[in-house]
Amino acid sequence: MITHISPLGSMDLLAQAEVDILKKSANSELYQLYRNCSLATLNAGSKTDNTQELLDRFKSFEINVISKERGVKLELINAPESAFVDKRIIRSIQANLFAVLRDILFLNGQITAIKHLVPNEKLEKDRSYYITNLVFSILRNANALHVGEEPNLIVCWGGHSINENEYYYARQVGMQLGLRELNICTGCGPGIMEAPMKGAAVGHAQQRIKDSRFIGMTEPSIIAAEPPNALVNELIIMPDIEKRLEAFVRMAHGIVIFPGGPGTAEELLYILGIMLNPANKNQTLPIILTGPKECEDYFAAIDQFIRNTLGEEATKLYEIIIDSPEQVARIMKHGVKQVKSSRLATGDAYGFNWLLKIDEALQHPFEPTHENMASLNLHKDQPVELLAADLRRAFSGIVAGNVKEFGMKQIAEHGRYKLQGDPEIMKQLDNLLLSYVKQDRMKLPGGSAYQPCYEICY
Amino acid sequence: MITHISPLGSMDLLAQAEVDILKKSANSELYQLYRNCSLATLNAGSKTDNTQELLDRFKSFEINVISKERGVKLELINAPESAFVDKRIIRSIQANLFAVLRDILFLNGQITAIKHLVPNEKLEKDRSYYITNLVFSILRNANALHVGEEPNLIVCWGGHSINENEYYYARQVGMQLGLRELNICTGCGPGIMEAPMKGAAVGHAQQRIKDSRFIGMTEPSIIAAEPPNALVNELIIMPDIEKRLEAFVRMAHGIVIFPGGPGTAEELLYILGIMLNPANKNQTLPIILTGPKECEDYFAAIDQFIRNTLGEEATKLYEIIIDSPEQVARIMKHGVKQVKSSRLATGDAYGFNWLLKIDEALQHPFEPTHENMASLNLHKDQPVELLAADLRRAFSGIVAGNVKEFGMKQIAEHGRYKLQGDPEIMKQLDNLLLSYVKQDRMKLPGGSAYQPCYEICY
Amino acid sequence: MITHISPLGSMDLLAQAEVDILKKSANSELYQLYRNCSLATLNAGSKTDNTQELLDRFKSFEINVISKERGVKLELINAPESAFVDKRIIRSIQANLFAVLRDILFLNGQITAIKHLVPNEKLEKDRSYYITNLVFSILRNANALHVGEEPNLIVCWGGHSINENEYYYARQVGMQLGLRELNICTGCGPGIMEAPMKGAAVGHAQQRIKDSRFIGMTEPSIIAAEPPNALVNELIIMPDIEKRLEAFVRMAHGIVIFPGGPGTAEELLYILGIMLNPANKNQTLPIILTGPKECEDYFAAIDQFIRNTLGEEATKLYEIIIDSPEQVARIMKHGVKQVKSSRLATGDAYGFNWLLKIDEALQHPFEPTHENMASLNLHKDQPVELLAADLRRAFSGIVAGNVKEFGMKQIAEHGRYKLQGDPEIMKQLDNLLLSYVKQDRMKLPGGSAYQPCYEICY
Amino acid sequence: MITHISPLGSMDLLAQAEVDILKKSANSELYQLYRNCSLATLNAGSKTDNTQELLDRFKSFEINVISKERGVKLELINAPESAFVDKRIIRSIQANLFAVLRDILFLNGQITAIKHLVPNEKLEKDRSYYITNLVFSILRNANALHVGEEPNLIVCWGGHSINENEYYYARQVGMQLGLRELNICTGCGPGIMEAPMKGAAVGHAQQRIKDSRFIGMTEPSIIAAEPPNALVNELIIMPDIEKRLEAFVRMAHGIVIFPGGPGTAEELLYILGIMLNPANKNQTLPIILTGPKECEDYFAAIDQFIRNTLGEEATKLYEIIIDSPEQVARIMKHGVKQVKSSRLATGDAYGFNWLLKIDEALQHPFEPTHENMASLNLHKDQPVELLAADLRRAFSGIVAGNVKEFGMKQIAEHGRYKLQGDPEIMKQLDNLLLSYVKQDRMKLPGGSAYQPCYEICY
Repeated sequence: MITHISPLGSMDLLAQAEVDILKKSANSELYQLYRNCSLATLNAGSKTDNTQELLDRFKSFEINVISKERGVKLELINAPESAFVDKRIIRSIQANLFAVLRDILFLNGQITAIKHLVPNEKLEKDRSYYITNLVFSILRNANALHVGEEPNLIVCWGGHSINENEYYYARQVGMQLGLRELNICTGCGPGIMEAPMKGAAVGHAQQRIKDSRFIGMTEPSIIAAEPPNALVNELIIMPDIEKRLEAFVRMAHGIVIFPGGPGTAEELLYILGIMLNPANKNQTLPIILTGPKECEDYFAAIDQFIRNTLGEEATKLYEIIIDSPEQVARIMKHGVKQVKSSRLATGDAYGFNWLLKIDEALQHPFEPTHENMASLNLHKDQPVELLAADLRRAFSGIVAGNVKEFGMKQIAEHGRYKLQGDPEIMKQLDNLLLSYVKQDRMKLPGGSAYQPCYEICY
Repeated sequence: MITHISPLGSMDLLAQAEVDILKKSANSELYQLYRNCSLATLNAGSKTDNTQELLDRFKSFEINVISKERGVKLELINAPESAFVDKRIIRSIQANLFAVLRDILFLNGQITAIKHLVPNEKLEKDRSYYITNLVFSILRNANALHVGEEPNLIVCWGGHSINENEYYYARQVGMQLGLRELNICTGCGPGIMEAPMKGAAVGHAQQRIKDSRFIGMTEPSIIAAEPPNALVNELIIMPDIEKRLEAFVRMAHGIVIFPGGPGTAEELLYILGIMLNPANKNQTLPIILTGPKECEDYFAAIDQFIRNTLGEEATKLYEIIIDSPEQVARIMKHGVKQVKSSRLATGDAYGFNWLLKIDEALQHPFEPTHENMASLNLHKDQPVELLAADLRRAFSGIVAGNVKEFGMKQIAEHGRYKLQGDPEIMKQLDNLLLSYVKQDRMKLPGGSAYQPCYEICY
Repeated sequence: MITHISPLGSMDLLAQAEVDILKKSANSELYQLYRNCSLATLNAGSKTDNTQELLDRFKSFEINVISKERGVKLELINAPESAFVDKRIIRSIQANLFAVLRDILFLNGQITAIKHLVPNEKLEKDRSYYITNLVFSILRNANALHVGEEPNLIVCWGGHSINENEYYYARQVGMQLGLRELNICTGCGPGIMEAPMKGAAVGHAQQRIKDSRFIGMTEPSIIAAEPPNALVNELIIMPDIEKRLEAFVRMAHGIVIFPGGPGTAEELLYILGIMLNPANKNQTLPIILTGPKECEDYFAAIDQFIRNTLGEEATKLYEIIIDSPEQVARIMKHGVKQVKSSRLATGDAYGFNWLLKIDEALQHPFEPTHENMASLNLHKDQPVELLAADLRRAFSGIVAGNVKEFGMKQIAEHGRYKLQGDPEIMKQLDNLLLSYVKQDRMKLPGGSAYQPCYEICY
Repeated sequence: MITHISPLGSMDLLAQAEVDILKKSANSELYQLYRNCSLATLNAGSKTDNTQELLDRFKSFEINVISKERGVKLELINAPESAFVDKRIIRSIQANLFAVLRDILFLNGQITAIKHLVPNEKLEKDRSYYITNLVFSILRNANALHVGEEPNLIVCWGGHSINENEYYYARQVGMQLGLRELNICTGCGPGIMEAPMKGAAVGHAQQRIKDSRFIGMTEPSIIAAEPPNALVNELIIMPDIEKRLEAFVRMAHGIVIFPGGPGTAEELLYILGIMLNPANKNQTLPIILTGPKECEDYFAAIDQFIRNTLGEEATKLYEIIIDSPEQVARIMKHGVKQVKSSRLATGDAYGFNWLLKIDEALQHPFEPTHENMASLNLHKDQPVELLAADLRRAFSGIVAGNVKEFGMKQIAEHGRYKLQGDPEIMKQLDNLLLSYVKQDRMKLPGGSAYQPCYEICY
């Protein structure tokens, strides 16, 4: 089946050179990336987190960019039927397809440009500066930074594999946030990525808000496992997991962390790693961990883990709220006002937190090879923000081993990752991970029993 | 507590004379009507259908219209707290409050005007013409008739007291309608009045529709029992139940009837009474009765009742679809296209079906006194559309006896309504009503056991 | 030639009853009024001020309102060709045609309504209240009162028969007003009615203002002689000259008076009659008389006339500025800010000056019969605002005798109007009028020499 | 005097890296370019064509880009007062300032990028491809290519130094184009660059068009001599004269050439050079030369020149219309429709004529040194499109010698340019140029007598 899709929202005009670069024949690596991200987008709403399964199921899928008198069109061959209603593509999917086109093209241009434009030694010296400017450029090009807008963006983190209760709770929090005219940014898939958006949509409807922002921030290695849910109206593809995390925190005016698995732990460790940096001691950013009544123990365990690894100070950076959507929303609304005052005082942009210091340790892409995993420095004799950074990497590796293509291949070839470090830290880690396994937080349930991809050595 | 509310959506400018007319002191009847409709609107989302309870609970509520340099403002004294989030009024409620102001003022002006403008004998002769023109004027003044808009409005009828399964099913139908870019008009309260809107909101979000229309069509005697739900973004107050029904069918491009109680039966009989009129034999209007699997018997009973009272022909005017939201939506989408062709062919307005013949018998307000109820002509020896009209009145009276102020008073004073007619019809009626009682479809559950307000004599 | 015109801007939906009322056959007086105003509008931009000539030239012109599936359409038969470009109607004319429809229908409804709705004795007692409310209702129905808008409307008065220098000067004033983001309201014809709009359009373009308001305020007896110019984007038809004047001053946030003839004098006397009323002593309204260098004597003569008839105090209500467009605009901008402060202080609406007291003497339509003209009270032994009111009527009669149908007929039948009063006032009047004759300010030049329609007796 | 200017229209968010690159200290060449273009823009509406004079007058002018919480701001130091009204910057100038920022930054990024991204040998081989893609990218980045827009853009060429009659005529043509809903693109200065926009603005107002496009297409070496007039609402700065010409013709749906001097001749020769290319024989592009009655001889001379140098075929590519604005507009409107059909047939973009073949000879920047001027191949023994290309360069050099910084310096140092070639061509050229001198078409009048910057050798 062949369908032609007109642009919606972005990327309606392409230069001839841009069309040429995306031809199947021209550049097979870039084309593959583009094709796979498009396929994941077309698969929106599906409930699998198995990337390979998706790729296998739609082997004959093809996407071609063609130029017409009214601008560019996409030719889809053998696209998933679920993307259509009565043979017409669903418009949110249509728009997201063009967001994919926009980001893939821009990334290709920008990254190659920076490599050539900036002399190597300068790049080496100011790498952090260039990475942050690149993150900014991608977001600006995606029209994600709105100048006239007051601070109002709540980043919601949490698992894609959650139970019904947790889902319902996150929807209630979303509704309370929406009633307070706050927007939502998540990692773009099902579960916690969807629930707060669904709630906020109802809250916004009650407040007659027509320009709701439901931002789905993803990256190529995760988009297939967590395809954009139906509510996402701004899809952004960052080049890798670290730039995605940086985009989250530079855009956030508040962060709510719902229950989740190792990916969520990675996110929490990432933001703690930043906020523990002495350079950020004047930063304002409300962070709340929240869930329904049943999650009380779950959050107590995490709190304990943080206290025992990063220390008491780290636990002061967040607040744990159990079973009170309204309180969560009220604190966020209040926090967002403080963020505004603080930006006014420093002159920093509302839309992009330039002044937040993110250490290079948190910016560099981490490749979860067995060697890299094994050599993580999980000891206490270092600045606490660096320990947080390496703990972040540990969880990042486990996510990869669980659901990402690269990581799963590593595990298949070399067996489990081995993690080592201070026995106390190792024990904490082991306990936390075990509780995740028990609570089905490692992968979407429904498959066979979870096979750990890691081994804690102590 | 005193709050001042700025206009939203409509009625931002009032003439001095209009402000004067709504003063508490000036005109206590009009003021009471205005105050009570406003109170019901502020009570949006509440789950009671007991009007008196509401009025009692907020005895100290007061509303004043005041003029300011930037236009009119409303002063609310002791308004229900549920209308506010962190002390700011919810914007959909704010907008609906001004819709109330708009309609009450317009009705007052128009109705008095017609009485004086049109000589009595002319009014008598062309009453139907004047009623239809009044219905049109109210809808136009409410900005409910959009000229540029393709036919897309699905009227959904059904009960406000339904179970979770029925609610979920109606939401699914709403989502499928919304995915097909159809808008929703209901009677404005909870239950079936809300569920399809909630579903359509998600469907519209997926289709990136920002100008969703969720019309709540109500009238003063019902608004308190069925206050506008949170999704309603166009609230319209018609002067009485008959003009409300006329507004529904002249605006509808398709009608979906979900499970409900006697109010829903009234609506079905109303539309059948119209469509059975020989003058309407060329009219195009898709009508579907639908519900989840468990409702199969319920709809079979209704179908049987119609067949046995109005005859086989009447049952051909609608289609019963069990447990298939997608099929319902597909048929409606197709039907709407046929409505468009038909309007193009006759030159009738997309937004308002002028050519639909509505007999005066269906337009006259029916006052459910015991005398009127007793003298309904429920015999077969008359044109079938007239029988439909009187059956409609019978159900209308029962709704009033159940939940409306006037009817409940009548019952309290004079005991149950007595209905009589052809024994066969009476038996059908008795059975249908009994099944409603058993299924809890008479009133919202939670109060004491249902006390019938009627007696079938045969 | 038959053309069908779709709605633009307003009145896209008509009730059947409204279509019926405008049928040629139904109501020949209302139809004639409607037809003639439409014809004048189609004749936009023409340079004649001879109403009869226009009517004679287009005797076969006809206009019919018809209903279609997408709303109302107008059928034009033998319309002036100048209204079309390449056979398509010019859109400003198209929009104005529907403004005519809107106002004629509304007026018909409202005026009949008031007559019937309000008991006679009450109407008699509160006539001023009802007239002002009617003026408000017409403007609101025409969507001319914008709630969110800051005070910014400058009413420009002056002659339609002016020379090139005066025209150029008025355009410069318009540009300076436009650069200061002020909008323009005039009497809707050529000459001074057009020039400031043309200038303001360029000023607005430089300020990137896209919602410029160029309001043409007219009434049926003058619209043919002064058809809306090309720039008018809001045409409003008031029922008579007095309500038009009231609309001007209640909407104005500042008034600029350019050179003109007796119509301009009428306007000046009208506003002075109001501002001299002790009830208005706290009103803020900047009034400037201005023209190019050559007009110095012209304005000195008017100033002298005012001083000698209404007294020194009256001359303090306005400022005369010669040859300085920038200064005029700067004073207006400043004055408009003071108007805003004053409205904020009193709570009066920005868009409509409710608190301005307009005496009934200035509201009653004045019929320029010979008897009425002869019995004007042009003596000093009365409150000065009443003298201003009768002087206003004197000039109003002269305008009618010069260019309006009713007045010209009176003159043709009974000879010149005779005006009498205090000899000093008569002398002042005589001199002023003679100077108008000499300066070609009585009628558009080009016809035969001016024949006075008045006689000053002293 | 220091002023801070907020963004309008574009470029509201800058990356830190972009702010850094425009710092006065950072990059003096880029800063100078940016500062001078900004100064020219602030000088909008001034009537000098002497760049040096402008630069001398505002030596102390400085512009700084600064980052704030709500996005970027510009700090202006000692800016021309004419850019302000009552101390607030005129918004069209404000918007244009940010257009300058946008284009300077983009060009800097793009051009450097291309140099590095594309291997040298590939660039050499496909230079034309890359130039065209660059032109496209600049226009897209300037948001000048509107996807939903029907073909409607008329490019108007002609002199900035014209007399009142020619100005008035061009305004009339503009009004007729505007009445036909066509947009205008010119070279952005006074004279013919302004007149058709002024006329079209009135035409658009009559047609209620609110999104008029008045595009001013300029480049750094000409912007100071021909600063954007008040009507320009899209300012685009192309990197050089050749890319500016390419942008004109790829965007044009029709070209009107008014009277002008050597710059206008350059433009005519440029488009003839393209249309004479056999590869373009199927291209549709209406070209009209037009002026008032007095210009009859002027156009006859040009026609003769073209006939005698490029041959009869070349004269068939354009039409000369004397004194008929309406006919010009009607032909353009018709031509634009044909352009649309043609694009539909070929699938080429409405907004950018990709298929038009522009020979590298017309794309390469021509540097008017004495050597380059002397070695132009002005002989007939070559393809006629190449002769047209070199004649274009000859006129381009003369324009530079008259009013551009580089050219004037060359003349000051080395005396007049010497042009040589076929005697017949030389004679034609000599005559045409002499007639320009006589008609004051070489420079803005008002200075001393014109001193030729060229010498024709034959």
